[in-house]
Parts: sequence; structure tokens; C-alpha cells
Amino acid sequence: MMKIIVDAFGGDNAPLAPVQGSVEAHKEYGVDIILTGDEAVIKKTAAENNLSLDGIEIVHAPDVFTNDDQPSTIRSKAKANTSMAVGFQLLKDGKGDAFISAGNSGALGAGAMFLIKRIKGIQRVAFAPVMPNMNSYFMLIDSGVNTDVRPKALQQFAMMGSIYMNKVMGFENPRVGLANVGAEEHKGDTLRQESYALLKETPSINFVGNVEGRDIPLDGADVVVCDGFTGNMILKTYEGVAIALMKKIKGVFTKNIKTKLAAAAVMKEFKEMKNSMDSDEIGGAPVLGCTKPVFKAHGSAKAKTIKNAIRVTMDYVNNNVIASITEALREIDDTQNEGE
Amino acid sequence: MMKIIVDAFGGDNAPLAPVQGSVEAHKEYGVDIILTGDEAVIKKTAAENNLSLDGIEIVHAPDVFTNDDQPSTIRSKAKANTSMAVGFQLLKDGKGDAFISAGNSGALGAGAMFLIKRIKGIQRVAFAPVMPNMNSYFMLIDSGVNTDVRPKALQQFAMMGSIYMNKVMGFENPRVGLANVGAEEHKGDTLRQESYALLKETPSINFVGNVEGRDIPLDGADVVVCDGFTGNMILKTYEGVAIALMKKIKGVFTKNIKTKLAAAAVMKEFKEMKNSMDSDEIGGAPVLGCTKPVFKAHGSAKAKTIKNAIRVTMDYVNNNVIASITEALREIDDTQNEGE
Repeated sequence: MMKIIVDAFGGDNAPLAPVQGSVEAHKEYGVDIILTGDEAVIKKTAAENNLSLDGIEIVHAPDVFTNDDQPSTIRSKAKANTSMAVGFQLLKDGKGDAFISAGNSGALGAGAMFLIKRIKGIQRVAFAPVMPNMNSYFMLIDSGVNTDVRPKALQQFAMMGSIYMNKVMGFENPRVGLANVGAEEHKGDTLRQESYALLKETPSINFVGNVEGRDIPLDGADVVVCDGFTGNMILKTYEGVAIALMKKIKGVFTKNIKTKLAAAAVMKEFKEMKNSMDSDEIGGAPVLGCTKPVFKAHGSAKAKTIKNAIRVTMDYVNNNVIASITEALREIDDTQNEGE
Repeated sequence: MMKIIVDAFGGDNAPLAPVQGSVEAHKEYGVDIILTGDEAVIKKTAAENNLSLDGIEIVHAPDVFTNDDQPSTIRSKAKANTSMAVGFQLLKDGKGDAFISAGNSGALGAGAMFLIKRIKGIQRVAFAPVMPNMNSYFMLIDSGVNTDVRPKALQQFAMMGSIYMNKVMGFENPRVGLANVGAEEHKGDTLRQESYALLKETPSINFVGNVEGRDIPLDGADVVVCDGFTGNMILKTYEGVAIALMKKIKGVFTKNIKTKLAAAAVMKEFKEMKNSMDSDEIGGAPVLGCTKPVFKAHGSAKAKTIKNAIRVTMDYVNNNVIASITEALREIDDTQNEGE
């Protein structure tokens, strides 16, 4: 029986959102859950919201790792009793199959890297959010962990992202694009030029060349590969522009009685559109490259987001993504050794 | 009398858009114009569209610098008869006060750098588009020319952007933000950390700290400073998300008769909203750091865009932006020498 560990004190809406999302996932998917966090508070939250904790185990962790804490301290003794560190420890000890948290992103990356460890041969672990675009979804890898990387790391991001988008998200032969400032092979800085050359030669990925910022939302690639600095700028600009535009549109619709009536008439269609672009449906971002499944839910995760994160993570476990990454890594190394 | 040189063969809608925009600008602002490009074609285009070329001088240039040409070749003998190279030569020779083109961006940057030359002490010239945000406008500097820069260049971008936004766009004490992956001073790579320290100590700019991607469209700063690679990714992601969202919304409005009626009811307000975000109103991007005003109009510039670019460029000339940059540069150097 699969068992997912969920940090009950990660994110803006903790502990209610993680507790409620876990309860709903258990009911809907029949998955076992371990919640980490202050036991009394979790029980009180469940009781107050009429949530049954049947089939849900609680592992007590009195402290919380906040967004103000230095990410690297997730390994420290002082933080060992935080709900996040306890979750990592349970995963490491084999008490569960995967770990989900909506807490401090940097700490989740550091924990995946240093407490769970990288897959042998993987240079960097990566945050890899699956985001909405014009037609469906795409993965942005890396989007925040690694500010200084080498082409080899981008090659591994491409490979890991392809496997995840194929096995978990169901994309046939996902198109890999290198985020860059122009379409031609010679564009960009040294990192981009060297990465382009390497990606072109990588077996088992479907490299479609450079993808410009403008083409990312317009479905230019299924896996967009970049360093973490660039990825974070893209990710947040993406979110910011969508928020700003939706605010502007809301302003239009609430301007007068005529526009308010118009708004009412398109309400249902706008809701459908918003849902199709709703990151809560995807639940967040896998942390790829470590030896066990770690998943970052949005900081603003609601119960639904956590429930969806649990469903996605079950697919992450069931489809042996990590075994496939390990195997693909061997293939890449074999090919490159042959070439040497 | 001010005289603006306009490349009649730059951009997707050339030569009609540059010719018509120039004719309208001459009529509306009384400014003299030199058009560069194939004289016969310009005259034919004007005649066919009932545009009077009174007050508009044509300097014949039989060739066109295309988007497929290597930017650096703008300096070459082979390209000396392109409408862009001829425009640069006229500017260099003092035959006009400023040069505007909607053509190859890279070539315009290279021409500004090598044919017009940098202001003494300026490390890099920068493309600095003025873009719409939630409330008004902001400048993104650099957004494409320089992929590898040092903190000193970012400091100069901050200073040049502040002067332009103040003198040409009328911003009182413009807020300067460093594009970065988090708000805190220690965030980002080495370039960001060192640039933060330098910007904090820079006289006569209003540095407000780091600005994340998410805050850029939400009016987090009036001048957003970054290297050209990052700026290009931000710029194009920004445009792409807006385009994708507007397409989605159009899809909603054209779904059925009910939504079409709703669309009709909010048409006027949507148009106003679109205008408030319309980059055609701003006309494009100054190239900052060279000794004479060079201005890049959007590749997709329409006649209105060119007309607006001419108006903005007149302000660029009239307000002595380049003299102010030269002076501010001296101030920075004085302060830093004192500190040494």
C-alpha cells in the first residue's frame, strides 16, 4: 500500500489545507497518509472542521520551518524537529514513498539534495513546476534552485523533465526547448551555446531547439530547460503578468452596470478558462534528481491543491520515474563514453 | 530646427509605416524628417497612399539590412548602402539630431556601439524598452544587447534609465529595482549580489532593492535593471503571456451568442484597457549609452508607432538626456574615487 508523507505545517494555509487535502485524498484515492506537525494542533484542526483522521497517521513535530529561515539550516540540529525535517527523515527511513510540502522552497530543495541525496551521477536537483500554457501544460526546469550551472546539468534537466512529462503527465515524446534569446543555434551566452550543442546530441530526448520567452506561453515546448535564475524570472514574470491582466479585466467588468451584466453573462466561460489555467489543478512542482520523490506544493496551496499534489505524486511513485531517470542517465553516459 | 532621421525600410510594415508615420509626425509636430531608403520606392509608396512628402527629405539607400543578416555586419562595406547604415552615417555626420529604425535590433545595437560610439566612460550601450505595467509604464534595461556584463554596467544602466524615465517620461525620482529571484540583499548569483551592493551606494538614483519577476507587471519599480539575457527573457515572456491570455479571452467571448453579446457590451472598456497597455503608444526603446540619440521602434511598428517614436525621440533630444548622462557619470566616478 502506498504511503505519502505530507508536511502539515507548510504553506500559507497550513495546517488546514494540508490536513483537509490529505483527508480528501485518502477518501478519494485510498492512499495512506502520514501528516507531520504538532499533533494536538492537527487533531484540533481536524475536529473543528469535521474531518475524519481515519487512515491518517500523525508523526509529531513541534516546530515549523518558516519562510524566513535560512534554507540550508534544514540540515541543522536546531531545525530537526520541524514538520519539514521530520518529513524528510521519515522519507529517508523508508516510512513513506514520497514527501510533499508547501513550505520554504529553498529548504525543500536543500533537504532533497542533502538529506535524501542526489541520484548517483546527477549534478543538481531541480524544481520543475508544471505550468499552464495556451493549449495545455509545460514543465519549467530548473526554476529556482541552481543559479550557477554547467551544460551537463541542463542536459540532465532535459532528460528528467522529459521522463516526468511522459510518465506522469502523459505527454508522448515531449518537445524539449532551451530557453534562449533567439531561435538560432548560436544565440545566447556561453552556457546556452554549449548546452545547445549537448542537447542536440542527447539520446532519447526530443530536442526542438531554442525557445524564446514569447513562445513559452504559446506552447513552444513541453519541457523548457534553463538555469534556476532564468527559470525563476520566467516563472514569476509569467505569474505576475497573468495576475496584472486579470486585475485589469476585473476592473473593466466592474466599471458600471452594463459591464457588470456582461460579466455575469460570461461568468461560466471565464471560470472554465481560469480553471484551464489553474495551477491548483497540477498541484505544484516535483523536485527532480533526488533518490526519492519529493514534491513542492504552491506556497498558497489550498486543500484542493494538496489533494491534487498527492494524486500527482502517486503517479510519480507508481510510474517509477526515478528508476527511469537512473537508467536514462546510464544511456547518456554510455553514448558519451563511446563518443570519447 | 530639429531633424529626425527615419529608416524607411526597417520593420515588418516598411516602407509604408515609416513613411506614413513620418509624414504624420511632420504635420503634427512640425519636425523635419530625413527618410533613408530606396528613393523611387518611397516616392511610389507615398503617391499610392496620398501622402505628401513636403518637408521630408529622402536620402537614397538602395539596400535593406534584413533580420537574417548578422548584426555585426552593419559596420561592413557590403552593408554600407543599406537604409540602416546610411541612417547611422547621417547621424554621425551631424545631418540629423536622432535616428529611428524598426529594423534588426542587434544591428541597431551594434551600429549605436560602433558607428555612433559610446559616451566616454560608458561600458555598454543598452536597449531599454518602456513597457506597460498595472498602473503606468516602466523601463526594462538592458533587454537584449549584453549577455555578459559586470556590476558596473548594471550601475550605469540604472543611472541612464533613471535619467530617461525622469526627463522623457516625466517620472519624479524613478524607483530603480534590480531584477532578482528574491527580495533580500543576499539573493541571486554573484552578479546580482555585487550589483546590489554597488546600486545601494550609487548617488542620484532611487534604488528600492531587488524586484522579483512577479512584481514587475505589478508596478514594483519604474526602472528594472538586469543583464540583456535576463531582460530579453522577461520582455518576451511578458509579451507572450499577454498575447496568450488575450487569445484565451477572445475564445471566451466568441463562444456563443450570449458571450458575443457580452463582448459587445464591454467592447469600449476593453479597447480602453488595451490602449492603456499598448506598446504602440510608447513607440519602442531608446538605445542608451551612445553619444547621439538612437531609438528602436517595434519590429511590428505601424504608422502610429513610428509617429509616436518620433515624438518620444524629440523629447529625448530636447531634454538633453545625453548631456545629463555624461554629467551623472562624472558624479558617480567622483564619488567612487573619493571612496577609494
